[in-house]
Amino acid sequence: MNTNTQTTRLYHSTLSPFCRKVRLVLAEKKIEVELVEEKYWENPPDLKRRNPAGKLPVLRHRGHMLAESQAIVEYLDEVVADPALMPRQPLDRHEVRRLCAWFDDKFNSEVTQPIMNERVWKKITRSGYPDSRAVKDGLRAIKEHIDYLTTLLEARRWLAGNAISLADFTAAAHFSCLDYISDVDWDRSEAVRDWYATIKSRPAFRSVLADQVPGIHPAPHYAELDFG
Amino acid sequence: MNTNTQTTRLYHSTLSPFCRKVRLVLAEKKIEVELVEEKYWENPPDLKRRNPAGKLPVLRHRGHMLAESQAIVEYLDEVVADPALMPRQPLDRHEVRRLCAWFDDKFNSEVTQPIMNERVWKKITRSGYPDSRAVKDGLRAIKEHIDYLTTLLEARRWLAGNAISLADFTAAAHFSCLDYISDVDWDRSEAVRDWYATIKSRPAFRSVLADQVPGIHPAPHYAELDFG
Ligand SMILES: N[C@@H](CCC(=O)N[C@@H](CS)C(=O)NCC(=O)O)C(=O)O
Ligand SMILES: N[C@@H](CCC(=O)N[C@@H](CS)C(=O)NCC(=O)O)C(=O)O
Repeated sequence: MNTNTQTTRLYHSTLSPFCRKVRLVLAEKKIEVELVEEKYWENPPDLKRRNPAGKLPVLRHRGHMLAESQAIVEYLDEVVADPALMPRQPLDRHEVRRLCAWFDDKFNSEVTQPIMNERVWKKITRSGYPDSRAVKDGLRAIKEHIDYLTTLLEARRWLAGNAISLADFTAAAHFSCLDYISDVDWDRSEAVRDWYATIKSRPAFRSVLADQVPGIHPAPHYAELDFG
Repeated sequence: MNTNTQTTRLYHSTLSPFCRKVRLVLAEKKIEVELVEEKYWENPPDLKRRNPAGKLPVLRHRGHMLAESQAIVEYLDEVVADPALMPRQPLDRHEVRRLCAWFDDKFNSEVTQPIMNERVWKKITRSGYPDSRAVKDGLRAIKEHIDYLTTLLEARRWLAGNAISLADFTAAAHFSCLDYISDVDWDRSEAVRDWYATIKSRPAFRSVLADQVPGIHPAPHYAELDFG
């Protein structure tokens, strides 16, 4: 039976970057997970019971309810050692966490949140039409972020250093949401496009690339491994 | 000479909860630090050089420039082991990080940010008068947060468990900013008041309690160890 409390289960929302980060890390660690889609904007009563913050993602793992994406992925990296997604040295670990926060705080508030809000959530929740200025601001901001990543990738194989880490999956989670609706200008930077093509071709990305959100079609290149 | 690159230096803003979190952890770890106040809203050109995100806090430690408060305090806990502010078990570590994120994300957006924005930043930056509705929403939200902490403290000595942790210093950093302008209703919960009185009386809190922001007077009880 698949419903015992030992099944790993993720309560998530398909186009949430925070949920995608957890999905990608679970898949990279080869942890089997049952996905349960939640309409968090309808405030489902069980959501607050599972996570008093009322937010997704929530991961049920070994009978525990875990919330907050960064806390969850660090936990997963501690309980499933292989493959390691955090380096060993404090300074390198700081760099991974700094970049995770860069995406979940700065990139999210300047890019993901305004664009997804205008172009996706308003449609899904039928709460009005996109504000084109907000979308424009987001598209302008994404250029600066791509340029910053380009400078990082001049000296590194992956975003936080020469090994793949939580920072890459966090960044890819945000980019993949925007890529679903075709809002990433991959022509701006060869280095960033190559980085994304490489991470996108990992088996861990398959489930995310198969996503289909009712009423919102993915961009034609969304699931293609050879794009841009 | 005190200006060599080995001096630990924190670029900060006095009433920023993220900066206070780092100050408290530095002090708890007995790491001597030189504080440099920055007016981040004036976009000082050096800020972006030190932290491309253009945000405070920035910590210079052993010649490295470190940004993002959570990444910084986890780094400090890794390089200065004593006193430990993170537990050992993955599940307990998750709980600490979940609560740090609770304050830096949810509490900040629902309480600290709206209240401080209206009552402090508008004054400091001379950008208008407080919007009383935003302040009211913040004061309403803080009650729910205090109630949540009360339930946590029924079963625990500290917020994330029976040992003091980064979660307590993160929470205290937010509360101390609001307490400076007297916006915490300490009568609502004896448990939360006692928790704050205990953490406030630690030597690590002394520097924060001595803060004076030009033009914004601290509440009379702000630095008192016996309050409420
Ligand atoms: N800091 C949280 C943010 C999660 C978050 O904002 N989730 C959104 C969905 S994308 C949500 O559930 N929002 C509901 C709410 O904020 O009430 C994390 O990293 O898990
Ligand atoms: N996620 C960051 C947030 C820091 C933050 O928002 N700092 C504010 C001061 S309280 C700032 O520098 N804001 C300037 C900006 O966002 O451009 C952290 O934890 O360090």
